[in-house]
Amino acid sequence: MRVNGRRLNESLRLLAEKGATSGGGVSRLALSDEDRAGRDLLRQWMGEAGLRVRIDDFGNMTGHRPGSEAGPAVLLGSHCDSVRGGGRYDGAVGVMGALEVIRTLNDNGVKTRRPLELVNWTNEEGARFEPAMLCSGAAIGRFTQEYVYDRADREGLRFGDELRRIGYLGREEDRPGPASAYLELHIEQGPALEEAGVPVGVVEGIVGITWQEVTLEGQTNHAGSTPMRLRHDALAVAARIITGVDRLTRELDSLAVGTVGRVSVEPNIINVIPGKVVFSVDFRHPQTAALETLAQELEKLVNEASAATRVTPTVNRFWTSEPTPFAPEVINAVQSSIEELGLPYRQLWSGAGHDAKYMADVYPTSMIFVRSKGGLSHCEQEYSAPEDIEAGANSLLLAATRLAGI
Amino acid sequence: MRVNGRRLNESLRLLAEKGATSGGGVSRLALSDEDRAGRDLLRQWMGEAGLRVRIDDFGNMTGHRPGSEAGPAVLLGSHCDSVRGGGRYDGAVGVMGALEVIRTLNDNGVKTRRPLELVNWTNEEGARFEPAMLCSGAAIGRFTQEYVYDRADREGLRFGDELRRIGYLGREEDRPGPASAYLELHIEQGPALEEAGVPVGVVEGIVGITWQEVTLEGQTNHAGSTPMRLRHDALAVAARIITGVDRLTRELDSLAVGTVGRVSVEPNIINVIPGKVVFSVDFRHPQTAALETLAQELEKLVNEASAATRVTPTVNRFWTSEPTPFAPEVINAVQSSIEELGLPYRQLWSGAGHDAKYMADVYPTSMIFVRSKGGLSHCEQEYSAPEDIEAGANSLLLAATRLAGI
Repeated sequence: MRVNGRRLNESLRLLAEKGATSGGGVSRLALSDEDRAGRDLLRQWMGEAGLRVRIDDFGNMTGHRPGSEAGPAVLLGSHCDSVRGGGRYDGAVGVMGALEVIRTLNDNGVKTRRPLELVNWTNEEGARFEPAMLCSGAAIGRFTQEYVYDRADREGLRFGDELRRIGYLGREEDRPGPASAYLELHIEQGPALEEAGVPVGVVEGIVGITWQEVTLEGQTNHAGSTPMRLRHDALAVAARIITGVDRLTRELDSLAVGTVGRVSVEPNIINVIPGKVVFSVDFRHPQTAALETLAQELEKLVNEASAATRVTPTVNRFWTSEPTPFAPEVINAVQSSIEELGLPYRQLWSGAGHDAKYMADVYPTSMIFVRSKGGLSHCEQEYSAPEDIEAGANSLLLAATRLAGI
Repeated sequence: MRVNGRRLNESLRLLAEKGATSGGGVSRLALSDEDRAGRDLLRQWMGEAGLRVRIDDFGNMTGHRPGSEAGPAVLLGSHCDSVRGGGRYDGAVGVMGALEVIRTLNDNGVKTRRPLELVNWTNEEGARFEPAMLCSGAAIGRFTQEYVYDRADREGLRFGDELRRIGYLGREEDRPGPASAYLELHIEQGPALEEAGVPVGVVEGIVGITWQEVTLEGQTNHAGSTPMRLRHDALAVAARIITGVDRLTRELDSLAVGTVGRVSVEPNIINVIPGKVVFSVDFRHPQTAALETLAQELEKLVNEASAATRVTPTVNRFWTSEPTPFAPEVINAVQSSIEELGLPYRQLWSGAGHDAKYMADVYPTSMIFVRSKGGLSHCEQEYSAPEDIEAGANSLLLAATRLAGI
């Protein structure tokens, strides 16, 4: 049993017409008119595939396919919302892939033992309403209904109002699940599979993340009249720390990543020695212990670099998300399915968050990654080859039937 | 013969009332109402000191004191304009010091052989009308009248209109000079004299300056899904170069200074690898050859750091001001005068520009620096002790009489 790759990629193409941008990407922000158009199309397709569609109080859309036995379903989900000027694959591949799994089972007249459910999560991106993964989090009780409804976009429009406006305000009792497992097909959004020359990856978990803000207070002074040895140059110290972040991350192991993405310099004038620099440090690693090591090494690095130049440092570790290892039995189901298909693959950790992170808190979970061209995502250049998407959907099909039983 | 320190510091205090800020500094932007109030007070004092006052076509104010012989004058000058929220010493010390020299000669009934002239230059700071040192430059023909009059401030007000508005538009034939020498007393605006524990310094010249803009084009990518070895992180490369600028400047000699003051990072988001970084590099040195060495070393540094990470660098050396060594005979006159006073002193180069830079192009020139507390300037905390200012004015008095003859 294999999916229909042509139909799958054609569905992706049709969905990409909703919110299409001139550069070949999509802008389908959560609860926008474009998102509504995409949802309407999906609802039509879900109905045509014989799914019983329900909408919950966060707009999460679930399509139910009964099994031969009652009991918790195997959930297959992702999201159809996008960032502004995003690509046509991020999220959409997972939803269209799950739909293609249902269609293929229909074509083959296969009834699984456990029910299957297709889920389209609302506002995964967080591009319109922060934070990201808002409605998978809300569905498992991580956020209250009141909190979700009060999220506002840049124009001050509230989530609750926009959800009602587009006609996707449903009922609390129609949330997805309960489930025996959760599976998510998604593009990698990174370069690892491409570099390894494989179409798909088995995702072992979602890395832990810790965010720090480093503030260095030195002394603003004239660039001409202050000799080097009398300077308290906050940027010179910051540069040493940024180099150190790069070095210590590389030295730890090949899984660690460390990024300084945001920097502000004061007064930021060509002929004035910077008196204050503030920058962010983002560390990610699959293991909590390694994440703690990185955070401790950063403190040491900051203190050593600052002491030599008499600059006053502060390190504020303001957010940490613990690593989320996925369930071995679901990882195994994915891996066995890919091997059955004879596809080359890699095991890897997801460096980015996904709805699967919240699902993993309550259900045995794993993900399947599809190779991304150039590792690019959240841009119009985002691309995954049709045959790779087909390979991912076949992996999802076989893993779903393994988990649901036939 | 010595200046009256009490009178000198009292004059400084009275001038500081014009444009006084609540924090103890002054905002006396060029050609503002506050600048006019300061000019009116100065003109009154110049008249009371018996000087023949003339105003030129740029608002430069000259007070002439005849000598016993005809011929070119010894010019003593500085400026009364300030930056926004500046200190009460920058520029003002030199004008009040020159006025005190005239008053002291009057008190002692001394007629110099050559005439003396006191000059208050318009718009030295460049804080309202760019560039800095606009009207000493214009007085020696570096800028045309048309160019100067067309300079506009942030509100679009033109120099020429503002000059007329405050009543200080004079005639071209009333420019300062001709002169046999130019002397400028000024606060150091740096920490070198304080560190050496001396009240005054003999200035040997104004350093050369070269400004570069470095652009690094890497690849914007997700901070989570891009392994370290596959990154083209423009900021990681920039950090190595910034550290290198600091190192190579320190290694050259104790006169070299190198500053990265301005940095912009794109997209400047906490969880995105910076794809582009642009930053400035300001090098200063008394010798042209050393300045060239620094600029060449920067190129090397940028290319080496970029190659390893596959980031594309551009170095644009967009402005260079050659070093301006002062005239040995004027330096000697200043040094002998300070030694005659028994004052401890240092010889040093000015790391900042002054009107003396343009004067040195046409007349034998030097400067006297007065110790700055903490090296601070262009802020309300700017401070020089009354006794140091008195020491500086006495040095100016003796140097002026040496150069003008008595």
